Amino acid sequence: MRNRQIADPKSLEAPENPDDQAVFRLVASLADEAGIVAALSDVLVSWKVNILELDSHATHRPGGTFHVRVEFAAPPGLLAQDGFRNDLDALGHGRFNGAFRLSEVLRPKRVCVLVSRYSHCLTELLTQWHMGELSCDIPLVVSNHPDLADEVARFGVEYLHVPVEPGLKVKAEALLLERLTGRFDLIVLARYMQILSAEFLDRVQTPVINIHHSFLPAFAGPDPYARARVRGVKLIGATSHYVTEELDAGPIIEQDVARVTHRDSTEALTRAGRDLERTVLARAVCWHLEDRVVVDDASRTIVFA
Amino acid sequence: MRNRQIADPKSLEAPENPDDQAVFRLVASLADEAGIVAALSDVLVSWKVNILELDSHATHRPGGTFHVRVEFAAPPGLLAQDGFRNDLDALGHGRFNGAFRLSEVLRPKRVCVLVSRYSHCLTELLTQWHMGELSCDIPLVVSNHPDLADEVARFGVEYLHVPVEPGLKVKAEALLLERLTGRFDLIVLARYMQILSAEFLDRVQTPVINIHHSFLPAFAGPDPYARARVRGVKLIGATSHYVTEELDAGPIIEQDVARVTHRDSTEALTRAGRDLERTVLARAVCWHLEDRVVVDDASRTIVFA
Amino acid sequence: MRNRQIADPKSLEAPENPDDQAVFRLVASLADEAGIVAALSDVLVSWKVNILELDSHATHRPGGTFHVRVEFAAPPGLLAQDGFRNDLDALGHGRFNGAFRLSEVLRPKRVCVLVSRYSHCLTELLTQWHMGELSCDIPLVVSNHPDLADEVARFGVEYLHVPVEPGLKVKAEALLLERLTGRFDLIVLARYMQILSAEFLDRVQTPVINIHHSFLPAFAGPDPYARARVRGVKLIGATSHYVTEELDAGPIIEQDVARVTHRDSTEALTRAGRDLERTVLARAVCWHLEDRVVVDDASRTIVFA
Amino acid sequence: MRNRQIADPKSLEAPENPDDQAVFRLVASLADEAGIVAALSDVLVSWKVNILELDSHATHRPGGTFHVRVEFAAPPGLLAQDGFRNDLDALGHGRFNGAFRLSEVLRPKRVCVLVSRYSHCLTELLTQWHMGELSCDIPLVVSNHPDLADEVARFGVEYLHVPVEPGLKVKAEALLLERLTGRFDLIVLARYMQILSAEFLDRVQTPVINIHHSFLPAFAGPDPYARARVRGVKLIGATSHYVTEELDAGPIIEQDVARVTHRDSTEALTRAGRDLERTVLARAVCWHLEDRVVVDDASRTIVFA
Repeated sequence: MRNRQIADPKSLEAPENPDDQAVFRLVASLADEAGIVAALSDVLVSWKVNILELDSHATHRPGGTFHVRVEFAAPPGLLAQDGFRNDLDALGHGRFNGAFRLSEVLRPKRVCVLVSRYSHCLTELLTQWHMGELSCDIPLVVSNHPDLADEVARFGVEYLHVPVEPGLKVKAEALLLERLTGRFDLIVLARYMQILSAEFLDRVQTPVINIHHSFLPAFAGPDPYARARVRGVKLIGATSHYVTEELDAGPIIEQDVARVTHRDSTEALTRAGRDLERTVLARAVCWHLEDRVVVDDASRTIVFA
Repeated sequence: MRNRQIADPKSLEAPENPDDQAVFRLVASLADEAGIVAALSDVLVSWKVNILELDSHATHRPGGTFHVRVEFAAPPGLLAQDGFRNDLDALGHGRFNGAFRLSEVLRPKRVCVLVSRYSHCLTELLTQWHMGELSCDIPLVVSNHPDLADEVARFGVEYLHVPVEPGLKVKAEALLLERLTGRFDLIVLARYMQILSAEFLDRVQTPVINIHHSFLPAFAGPDPYARARVRGVKLIGATSHYVTEELDAGPIIEQDVARVTHRDSTEALTRAGRDLERTVLARAVCWHLEDRVVVDDASRTIVFA
Repeated sequence: MRNRQIADPKSLEAPENPDDQAVFRLVASLADEAGIVAALSDVLVSWKVNILELDSHATHRPGGTFHVRVEFAAPPGLLAQDGFRNDLDALGHGRFNGAFRLSEVLRPKRVCVLVSRYSHCLTELLTQWHMGELSCDIPLVVSNHPDLADEVARFGVEYLHVPVEPGLKVKAEALLLERLTGRFDLIVLARYMQILSAEFLDRVQTPVINIHHSFLPAFAGPDPYARARVRGVKLIGATSHYVTEELDAGPIIEQDVARVTHRDSTEALTRAGRDLERTVLARAVCWHLEDRVVVDDASRTIVFA
Repeated sequence: MRNRQIADPKSLEAPENPDDQAVFRLVASLADEAGIVAALSDVLVSWKVNILELDSHATHRPGGTFHVRVEFAAPPGLLAQDGFRNDLDALGHGRFNGAFRLSEVLRPKRVCVLVSRYSHCLTELLTQWHMGELSCDIPLVVSNHPDLADEVARFGVEYLHVPVEPGLKVKAEALLLERLTGRFDLIVLARYMQILSAEFLDRVQTPVINIHHSFLPAFAGPDPYARARVRGVKLIGATSHYVTEELDAGPIIEQDVARVTHRDSTEALTRAGRDLERTVLARAVCWHLEDRVVVDDASRTIVFA
């Protein structure tokens, strides 16, 4: 029997009422070998999964990695089936030496936003969330300043003020770790002006997304708009990236630019930049929440968008 | 035996020297049923194919169409194997009621360009082709005017002058059909100012790509730049689409826009538009040549780009 | 004496402390005749005005219109000087047959926002205003639905619910006229789903800016996203324009587009469009508030941005 | 008499037939003082000049510079009038301590293009010039390689091969200086891979425009596409700038970007970049030819476009 799916289609019948199905996402990064798509899809088919969308990318061959994102419909409760996870594990760990990430579309991820004094990125995230455009929960905003407490209260979200006093960053981070570790799926730095330590990043075990107000790698570091003005660039940019130990050097998720002219003062650049920053950050967060972002080799992202 | 690919990996071994492989593309549009990816990839695996890139799109479910584009490496000569085509046919016609298109990356498609008096789109295509950026052959340019003969001669391409005299379009189209039918994989209208008849389109049996100098459906028909100027739009556009019987209404492949201001006269719009037109047309032609464009329901395109 | 400014520079001395100056804007549309810039700048110089920024556009010559926007510093209280206005009037009405508009940068314009049920454009305007990015007052939001009362209350702005019952639009507009006429400098339709009558527009004597959710003139009328989906366009757009009697046909202030793909459902287009709509509307409103928009021939705008 | 232009309009009459007029451009950078626009326009009016377009920018006040570009119609032969130049000189050197640049629209500038082996930028410039889109003369192309001789011959332009042998750059530059100095209005480096010495730049006394294949200041120096690939940026760019002693640091004229994804190899980035490079360079050259670019403080450009 060469191909079980073709030989015995009866066993693949869909649930009688398609509305009884749930939608799931599988993101996998596997050693790139011949037959990998077939092996993966065979497992899915054997669990009566209907593939809605499949996107893949092989980084380089041979010896490269095969990244794949599958959105599929299946009976609810599939993720609770040990057999299903075992079959995937068998693929990943046994034969293909890879890793899987599974999520259920209807279970929202939990997000904590860190902010300092500028409100535009925070407000954008809260507004989009409030309008139902970001499928997540945002139960907590943390700031090293008290300024935005009212703004956050408007959205009915808890506001935690964790000051970072000179020389006492360790203490502040300990407080953060206590509140954040293991309780969130994503931390977003919405113009949070403190540098998180390598130890914090290591211990919090949660992906952290930042927005940098320049078109990285141009103008990494502080004051990008003033430096853009001095250099006379014709476009300014914003970059959203995962945070790593090295400042402003983590894998880039999204970037965008806006045209500026000689008429624009540093202030005008800053203003135009605010629009870019909030748009780019919101897009990156949205893609992360929809499991569209995979990090390859700890340095670059694959964005299935 | 649940999964042949896992049970018997030995039979999947790649050729010893990867350089002995050729690269192929498979584009398929199939009735969207559960198991389709598995069935398709099983066929490919059974022919020792290594999937390099797979992109898919399901239009609507259930009862929709599953479009898939696969770029894969395999032993040269695969397309000559009756068994391979039979296996795909069995999938497509038997079970899934769909259609396949196979191409070999190294075999260039043959392109004929039709043009009237404006040279910018033609020159762009010839220049890109000359630089090796469009993987095709362009053995023939046809025009209803003699004006661009020298321009085409610069590229060493044959120039055929087929005048379209008032009331004698049928005669001109007959001449075209004689030269084009069955000899080309693609016809490109690079600002060809004659409307091709439904009969011609039906008989030539070759896809025809046109460039329209507006952001369709805005300003369909003649003189789009003058009308854009009168309406005071802030962006002008260009649209590349497959030609169908209905004027300016075929499936859109690519569009782009450029910002304009109150300072721009109709002449300035026309000039800015020329840049758009040639860029958009070249992009559409490139995607078509790389088998990235699929037409769904005879009305919209899926572009795997 | 050929040139008074050169011959007698002493009479032009600036105030001792530049901080004592106020910033003003002059927008003028004048019959385009030789010498117009000189005549205008002579008047300004004679009033000890320092030109900060001057932008001009002549529509067509001869017999055309010369539009000019000047931002200048001058002693506060200049606008209260009858002599200054008389000198400009002498230019405009006597010699050049034109019209002037003067404004003081520090005096914010009064804006009323009309909205129906979609909040995104309204929230964008209120948020930008709240952050100090729109230099205006927004004392009033009017809606034909009660839904957004809480959203508006969050910003401390009055919310007036004026239902528009079938057949009773005249009554609703009468109420609006009573509240709006003569009290605002600008009315913004932030996805207000009622068509304002020609009589209303005539009587309210206030410019009205609308946002249309398509790249006009494509998809004028209702349901643009669904129609864009059917047509298979590769970019969707939004258009902000002044409202005139003819639906969706008023002078365009700003447009922008976003790239979409075959993957985007009508819902996804609508979502991407929301981002466009609020950005484009906010930009148009900002430019209007900064006196950057002039309407030429009642049909097209000149945007000094 | 307060205002000569108003008091005596008769003296300002235009030539009877407007077609007898020529179009000129005046670009001036003047110390920013009150009355400068009036003084300048008075001079123009006194010479019966009709201002078609006036654009200005004041860099910072006080003590800043007022840059202005005026396009005006006047009797042909105006530039030959000593009195006219004297009047402008009186303004510039006497009162305002500035500098003027005058040009006649119909007198094309002379351009020399330097190139190495990549043809795309060169071909774009020659094609646009051939189509009449760049109003200049291109009598000479110089290359340090013989490769592009045929390409240039296609356009009927002289091709000068000046090899740059290791250690003999001085000799090559001496040859260039001999051919170029005083004979051209503009030198364009269309992917010329040699660094011109400070001495050359000083002695050639001609503005030099370069195209850099990155979004400067990101990826200054060699191999920008490979480095962009490694960094995982989501947009690549190109930058056209005036050449100064410091490599890749001269005043930027124009920049643009294109979106890329994880799928794009270094080769694909290079290919997408070629489109950017030629577009951005052609735009910068066009603006320079139309006297739209002014350099402020030897570091940034003002682009009146």
